[in-house]
Amino acid sequence: MESSNEEVENRQIVLRDYVSGFPKETDMVPSKTTLKLKVPEGSKAVVLKNLYLSCDPYMRNRMNKADGSSYIHSFTPGSPLVGNGVSKVVDSGHPDFNNGDYVWGITSWEDYSLIENPESLHKIKYTDVPLSYYTGILGMPGVTAYIGFYEICSPKKGEYVFISAASGAVGQLVGQFAKLMGCYVVGSAGSKEKVDLLKNKFGFDEAFNYKEEPDLNAALKRHLLLAQYKSFFGLSSHSDGLKKSILFLLISHQSPINFRYFPEGIDIYFENVGGKMLEAVLFNMRNHGRIAVCGMISQYNLDKPEGVHNLFLVVAKRIRMQGFLVFDYYHLYPKFLEFTRQHILENKIV
Amino acid sequence: MESSNEEVENRQIVLRDYVSGFPKETDMVPSKTTLKLKVPEGSKAVVLKNLYLSCDPYMRNRMNKADGSSYIHSFTPGSPLVGNGVSKVVDSGHPDFNNGDYVWGITSWEDYSLIENPESLHKIKYTDVPLSYYTGILGMPGVTAYIGFYEICSPKKGEYVFISAASGAVGQLVGQFAKLMGCYVVGSAGSKEKVDLLKNKFGFDEAFNYKEEPDLNAALKRHLLLAQYKSFFGLSSHSDGLKKSILFLLISHQSPINFRYFPEGIDIYFENVGGKMLEAVLFNMRNHGRIAVCGMISQYNLDKPEGVHNLFLVVAKRIRMQGFLVFDYYHLYPKFLEFTRQHILENKIV
Repeated sequence: MESSNEEVENRQIVLRDYVSGFPKETDMVPSKTTLKLKVPEGSKAVVLKNLYLSCDPYMRNRMNKADGSSYIHSFTPGSPLVGNGVSKVVDSGHPDFNNGDYVWGITSWEDYSLIENPESLHKIKYTDVPLSYYTGILGMPGVTAYIGFYEICSPKKGEYVFISAASGAVGQLVGQFAKLMGCYVVGSAGSKEKVDLLKNKFGFDEAFNYKEEPDLNAALKRHLLLAQYKSFFGLSSHSDGLKKSILFLLISHQSPINFRYFPEGIDIYFENVGGKMLEAVLFNMRNHGRIAVCGMISQYNLDKPEGVHNLFLVVAKRIRMQGFLVFDYYHLYPKFLEFTRQHILENKIV
Repeated sequence: MESSNEEVENRQIVLRDYVSGFPKETDMVPSKTTLKLKVPEGSKAVVLKNLYLSCDPYMRNRMNKADGSSYIHSFTPGSPLVGNGVSKVVDSGHPDFNNGDYVWGITSWEDYSLIENPESLHKIKYTDVPLSYYTGILGMPGVTAYIGFYEICSPKKGEYVFISAASGAVGQLVGQFAKLMGCYVVGSAGSKEKVDLLKNKFGFDEAFNYKEEPDLNAALKRHLLLAQYKSFFGLSSHSDGLKKSILFLLISHQSPINFRYFPEGIDIYFENVGGKMLEAVLFNMRNHGRIAVCGMISQYNLDKPEGVHNLFLVVAKRIRMQGFLVFDYYHLYPKFLEFTRQHILENKIV
């Protein structure tokens, strides 16, 4: 579609009203309006044709009525949802953008968007990968994983990494970065299919379905012991028969060998979940462990968030817990892009 | 008392049994034994005459039955309490220590102690200050304050610092270090007398009695607004009449000026308390704030610690929360000693 002075039909997905509890399909309403595919005379705006739109966990927070505690504005009821997308510039009043450019960044859930301040859009440099990658591995979730792991976690080879919501767009990539660095990686997810993906597609050493674990603390302890035994006996990650025998030995004998020869817990926790999971992880962190706090998705739909009762362990174990938002790190995008694209081309990450 | 082969009477304070809830006086029992004031032939031990013993908050944790979550061993029921003290060496088998040396470090609550591994004792270099200072401002609490503030908080001039349990041995010194750096400092404590000490003796800008604040969140907000107004109108910390007028204006008009011209919250929280206080502080932290977690004394006597429900703010505000233990930093003791002693001699800290 070329830029034009004519108004075209513009389909939108509009937020009906603020949401509390789990969002329902009826909270989002299809709607129609029209838009002129030309920027206003003299403005520095751009008009985008939106090609891919991404639905990301942080958007849940923007559906709440603002209470002053959020880091970004709430959505406006009656207006289209706003999120990351990949778009094509159809008209531009801005010197940095030309018609036909592909961009990724914050746009609206509609066919066409008029962006008044396009400075925060990222121009897409490489189109030899599918454009949809820029809503994922090469877009906001990708940078989040990269920053969270390399800048916040201070990772070292051989460290023990745990990732919650590990099959999400961010978690799956954190796990792959951690494997590239030679860490031992365990993830949690919410279904057998996701757990299989983590182990078979993304190369996690282990993964478990948190919904099948009545005691998360015990689940983490089991995986720590397993990791430690594998390391002691020099087992690969996927020797399943042996693994089961060892687990059996372990559970039946409660061998004290663990406490003498093996590391004591999780070095790095990549936190996407919060609440009970964080509490269980704190019990299993190692001294001088680091927690990169990327999100707390288990809490977003609760009116009253769960309490975390064992924060004293932050002192006892000298833990560093660091919240971060990817927006603060977009200046590192070019470095991230070269690094990640190279590894995609070499089939080292997927 | 010279070293001698004779056994001398040795009074002790013994832990009766593990403690749950608030410790009572009867949990600690006076007792007597005897000790030979001579180290065993060929050992590297020292015998100390204990001059000053310090009762520090972290000791409460050592009175619990070990559950694997603590960073140090529990005390042994039937044995004397163990803590920091200032002592004189009365016999030494260790090349680093001579009879007559003064030392500070971990000793037992008794007249004389045989220390098998004296390597962790600190030899006292300066005796031109009262020796008791080495249980406080020049000892473990002093190093804790120094490390916690300068190494963990990454402080900058003009930042807004809040300290809980601020009249404690650590808190009062953190406040003074923060004032030396040109920060605005508010502390909380548990009585009017302590609050007065903070403001009049230790130079805090403001202080409040948390027991008189049914809503800690509101108390912190009030102090933030006060700080901001003082800064805006160029008021000194102690103009009490004006302060009251401003507070009145502030409360009666709920002026929106705050949100446009003033900083948004606490830059640095020095955490000694935990629980509800931490929750209230998180609501009032500024983006990119830092929390040095030194202790969580409000939780030590609880069977079930309080939950902290608003940890999502760690993400939203990109907060760094860092637990630390002074034991990891004793190599910085000489640097701390020169710095702090100098400021004591110049009457800049008390």
